[in-house]
Amino acid sequence: MNVEVLAVGTELLLGQIVNGNAADIGARLADAGLAHYRQTVVGDNVERITKAITEAVARADALIITGGIGPTQDDLTRDALVAAAGVPMMFSEEYAEHLRAWWERRGRSMPETNLRQAEYPHGAEMIPNEKGTAPGLRMRIGSCWIFAIPGVPQEMLPMIDGHIIPFLVAETGDGTSAIVSRLLRTWGDSESRIAEVLGDLYDTGSNPTLAYLASGGEIKLRLTARAASRAEADLLIDPVETEIRSRLGSLVFAVGDTTVERVVLGLCGDAGWRVATAESATGGLVAAALTSVPGSSAVFAGGIVAYSAKAKVTLLGVPQAIIDEHGMVSEETGIAMARGATERLGADVAVGVTGSAGPDVLEHPAGTMVIAVVTPGGQRARVLRLPGDRERVRAYATTSALHHLRLALTGAWWKA
Amino acid sequence: MNVEVLAVGTELLLGQIVNGNAADIGARLADAGLAHYRQTVVGDNVERITKAITEAVARADALIITGGIGPTQDDLTRDALVAAAGVPMMFSEEYAEHLRAWWERRGRSMPETNLRQAEYPHGAEMIPNEKGTAPGLRMRIGSCWIFAIPGVPQEMLPMIDGHIIPFLVAETGDGTSAIVSRLLRTWGDSESRIAEVLGDLYDTGSNPTLAYLASGGEIKLRLTARAASRAEADLLIDPVETEIRSRLGSLVFAVGDTTVERVVLGLCGDAGWRVATAESATGGLVAAALTSVPGSSAVFAGGIVAYSAKAKVTLLGVPQAIIDEHGMVSEETGIAMARGATERLGADVAVGVTGSAGPDVLEHPAGTMVIAVVTPGGQRARVLRLPGDRERVRAYATTSALHHLRLALTGAWWKA
Repeated sequence: MNVEVLAVGTELLLGQIVNGNAADIGARLADAGLAHYRQTVVGDNVERITKAITEAVARADALIITGGIGPTQDDLTRDALVAAAGVPMMFSEEYAEHLRAWWERRGRSMPETNLRQAEYPHGAEMIPNEKGTAPGLRMRIGSCWIFAIPGVPQEMLPMIDGHIIPFLVAETGDGTSAIVSRLLRTWGDSESRIAEVLGDLYDTGSNPTLAYLASGGEIKLRLTARAASRAEADLLIDPVETEIRSRLGSLVFAVGDTTVERVVLGLCGDAGWRVATAESATGGLVAAALTSVPGSSAVFAGGIVAYSAKAKVTLLGVPQAIIDEHGMVSEETGIAMARGATERLGADVAVGVTGSAGPDVLEHPAGTMVIAVVTPGGQRARVLRLPGDRERVRAYATTSALHHLRLALTGAWWKA
Repeated sequence: MNVEVLAVGTELLLGQIVNGNAADIGARLADAGLAHYRQTVVGDNVERITKAITEAVARADALIITGGIGPTQDDLTRDALVAAAGVPMMFSEEYAEHLRAWWERRGRSMPETNLRQAEYPHGAEMIPNEKGTAPGLRMRIGSCWIFAIPGVPQEMLPMIDGHIIPFLVAETGDGTSAIVSRLLRTWGDSESRIAEVLGDLYDTGSNPTLAYLASGGEIKLRLTARAASRAEADLLIDPVETEIRSRLGSLVFAVGDTTVERVVLGLCGDAGWRVATAESATGGLVAAALTSVPGSSAVFAGGIVAYSAKAKVTLLGVPQAIIDEHGMVSEETGIAMARGATERLGADVAVGVTGSAGPDVLEHPAGTMVIAVVTPGGQRARVLRLPGDRERVRAYATTSALHHLRLALTGAWWKA
């Protein structure tokens, strides 16, 4: 069962909205073990919609079309289905009554254009819409099942989950097949180096397959297994995850959507420690990341953004002599900032970040960043040279600060 | 000039990331007046990428491919281009040297897999990558220009803006026609209300046209004019901008990519004032926004993230009596926080943010946020009830804090 997704809407092509529907449907198809090789977007043009439908029908076993079934003149999916299938347009008196009653219940008279929603290509069945007035449609062209559903996510998703996925899974006749993906998140080495270390685990025919996703300074490893059930797929993934963890060690920091800030707060919570931040060049981003986690107030003691030398002295108690001797961007100043944050904010653990985010070159090249961590178990600082513009340097430094906190809290940084 | 976009990446089909690139490229093509009728997504499979390229070549004058040009085994766009064009794969010794030097400058040895990035289909030219190591590619298949660029937005967008759009506009051969877009950014009222106020300025045939874009709590108005030259297009836009500004007043805060944080820093700089932040629920996001602007250190005095009541008292000097009497989430506490920030950080102006970002319901419903501003010209606070989850509430509150700073600095908030 090979399923394609076609989104209809000029606003998608103009970039006025992002095609989140395709991602939502793709995730659900993957979870259901349905193959999904292509997504297409076309505008509100009946010829181009028709052509896209005709092409998909030749390739796929099923096509899910989102958008273009509302009441206005630029809702053209029904017309394109009629053209692609070579069937007449029908009119449902029953659905017209349903529409009139819907408007009446809301105390309003129905604009006549809404009757377009009672039209359907000959042979199509209507899929009920629990959240709006445009019904979905299900029909067959050649050997391909076609589903046309609204583009509004709140109306679309119930039809996907309640009707289309169960229908397609039943159609496969292969009720036992499942696809399971597991995401291992790593930080601290390049995609190419990790690919080298794991190269022998990867093969287009292997089960599970292994894919790399680089984003935000992290390398994510996606293991995807196919099996008769979700439980069996999990059993195929488990030993590969174990092997990857043994090869990559502390590079692997989480599974799935667990973030490094959650890991850091969890480690602090387990140790009964409170954490604070002392930021210069990241300007509050590390504190913002930690406080993005609900319930962080139980562990997060507070943060100070001290940009100037004077603020580092008055707010964080960094000795002026340290700044004079080593400079603002130095391991010594970083550690004094972190140490000051523990004292001023009553914390056990703190991270200090100082550096030059650019584009102005001060005493150090833009991208020079110092990360310093102080815990009851030790203290250490590191100078990084980060690439990119100001925004990227700040983002990388923030991620880096959180990971050095993590490595300090697990003790890995003291051993490294 | 009919341009298509093809995104390559199994993670898109699996719904693990949303295809924001296609939207970004679509918006830029629209602004440049380049026709754009179709977007496609395929996975990391060389046959399916090749097929998608071959189909697009038959339909379009240009094809922009994002993704699949990194260093790993599942980066297959180069191989698909070779297959679609029927040309051999070449190897650039020069680019290989460039790659080795790039790694050397960072004090690391290059994994050999990275040499894939020095490969290119015969006949292709490389497009420099300012932000990473994978070069873009430009080549011709039949009468269609093909561009293959990275999927990472920070690497992709500079190639789109700096290379591809100018190249395609020059290719149209329609050198006399210019399309100029100007973005007016507004904050403080709904899209439907603004559309009502400006309704008579809009007409599908008008020049300039007017489009609305809602994002991040802002309503952006995009005026797009077509004329024989950029200067003439600007002259068409100027009176419409003047009319819009006179109708919307202080709702309009900037043009183009000028952010509210830049506006705030500019207003402070003009007045010779230094600004500070005192944050609870936004956890450092307001400070991070202000310090995202290069040179902000001249105006930004510092920030304090005080989550707990104790931190508000010890770090910001909020009188315990005010918290006891009015609660943590109150106009009084917000103003005391801002006032404390001016004193502790030696600033003239400060914004205080306190509230409940959720999902836990404390003394107030999740989404209750207080924004307080203190300047030499006055002080005022406001309670907001923001919709959405924790992330959204924090983002809205941050934007709102910056805009209330702006309205206070221009004096508009004292008059409102």
